[in-house]
Amino acid sequence: MKAAETISIRAEMAGAAEVTVRRFAESASTDVPDSVAVEEPLEIRIEYGPRDVRATKSISVTMRTPGSDAELAVGFLLTEGVIRDADDVDTIASSNFSPDDASRLDPESHDDSILRTKRGAPNIVTVELRPHIEVNTAALARNFYTTSSCGVCGKASLLALRAVCPARLANTFTIEAEALHRIPGLLRVNQNVFQQTGGLHAAALFDCAGGLDSMREDVGRHNALDKLIGAAALADRLPLRDRILLLSGRSSFELLQKAVMSGIPMVAAVGAPSSLAIEVAKDFDVTLIGFLREGHFNVYHGAERVQAS
Amino acid sequence: MKAAETISIRAEMAGAAEVTVRRFAESASTDVPDSVAVEEPLEIRIEYGPRDVRATKSISVTMRTPGSDAELAVGFLLTEGVIRDADDVDTIASSNFSPDDASRLDPESHDDSILRTKRGAPNIVTVELRPHIEVNTAALARNFYTTSSCGVCGKASLLALRAVCPARLANTFTIEAEALHRIPGLLRVNQNVFQQTGGLHAAALFDCAGGLDSMREDVGRHNALDKLIGAAALADRLPLRDRILLLSGRSSFELLQKAVMSGIPMVAAVGAPSSLAIEVAKDFDVTLIGFLREGHFNVYHGAERVQAS
Repeated sequence: MKAAETISIRAEMAGAAEVTVRRFAESASTDVPDSVAVEEPLEIRIEYGPRDVRATKSISVTMRTPGSDAELAVGFLLTEGVIRDADDVDTIASSNFSPDDASRLDPESHDDSILRTKRGAPNIVTVELRPHIEVNTAALARNFYTTSSCGVCGKASLLALRAVCPARLANTFTIEAEALHRIPGLLRVNQNVFQQTGGLHAAALFDCAGGLDSMREDVGRHNALDKLIGAAALADRLPLRDRILLLSGRSSFELLQKAVMSGIPMVAAVGAPSSLAIEVAKDFDVTLIGFLREGHFNVYHGAERVQAS
Repeated sequence: MKAAETISIRAEMAGAAEVTVRRFAESASTDVPDSVAVEEPLEIRIEYGPRDVRATKSISVTMRTPGSDAELAVGFLLTEGVIRDADDVDTIASSNFSPDDASRLDPESHDDSILRTKRGAPNIVTVELRPHIEVNTAALARNFYTTSSCGVCGKASLLALRAVCPARLANTFTIEAEALHRIPGLLRVNQNVFQQTGGLHAAALFDCAGGLDSMREDVGRHNALDKLIGAAALADRLPLRDRILLLSGRSSFELLQKAVMSGIPMVAAVGAPSSLAIEVAKDFDVTLIGFLREGHFNVYHGAERVQAS
């Protein structure tokens, strides 16, 4: 799809809201203004099928920070294996309030004062797929990654990920330790909303020289990564074979899954990895770095691709 | 249910796994042993219905740190509004590999070396409900909290939470600022697995004097809280009207929802709150504290219940 087709999504909204807080420090307390990260639900829908029999399906509801919603939706569908690339997408539309939803809520619980306040905020993104695209219904079964014929376990999760993952290319991405030491500082100075709120996760791509490529922030770390990958997909930049992904927090199965699905060869996190994040890194030969801060870091897989400087 | 009925769940498993990492510091790198937090999928199922027509339904798959799985399952079902209290529960069983699952995986992707390694780990918890319990099917619709007749928005999420929330009692819980300043330190010294891995979120209950009541850790912050609340529910201690909840990270809609569903009157987080966490706190009159560290904190709602010392 062309970038111009995403214009029905409103421009990036402010990720911060203003509140008044009572601040306690030492023995004093005062009321002061403060900024907090905005959290709002986003429903992701797909419209698919031949031109004469289009169907709409709700895929996910995620609590996210508004802004970059089209990127979030595309990144989510891609990294969950529902679509293969942005060429599967025709247009992206944002909306709210569909009459179909009216029956889902108990009428007893209606409260007009609440109904009036926010109706119309565009918290539904519908990704309209091209007519010939067949939706991967296996990927839509939400238990697919974790329930398989060998039982529920980490190995089963890896096995399921292998089944939907695009073909693997050789991992030739290397970086110097000195560049690694620099990138968390670059992430911090560019985290605009975090500076205001202290409440956002960030995901960013850097090149092999440690130069910042792109960054996204969100209250949910998986959303920040979906936005980042979705933006690259919409710019037709996948697979991301020559970029390192930096995560502001910890690394988990889900985040490594998203990296693998978009072809990222190296993942570095400021925090710790989980056991299953390491398993994914080994299985898909992704270099995995943790505790990247204060002049040191640990490499959990692929240490030969980090060059001591 | 009685505590003795949970014995089919194996005893707390170690939350840490041993790995070898290459550690880079200054200009040197060395291979050293390290501990990482274990992350494995857990499938939560319910068995329900009259004695002659019992049905089993898969409710959720979550990536969690093994251990306290029965507590996690009960806490999840309670805070999602599927069950009302632990009296709804008959027994809890753990298992893995059900033949029903065999058809879910593409036979092409089978890999015997993987199938052999882990078969049999008990990563399925089935919560068997008493025969007369009617399952709240509205709560089982995963979009319930976020898609309603007023559209998808934060207010709709609050409205949906009101519909399933137990009756609200007056909030009479107060605490001295001095006790608040003390509790993050108490959390840290008791975070056993975090000390080893640096990779776990914690949720803990304290009394109004700042004494530690109970704590749980997990790779997922929602899981840590479900385990904590599930443990209290199984000990017949709900609603938790005289405890403050401390979260090791940030606070979000989902975490405040769980606090509200278990009757917790005050929530303190070491990190920032989201806008929707504050909305829930105001709507359900829960005192909400953020950035509780280094001798200061912010109160986002209910500041009159914090006594300057």
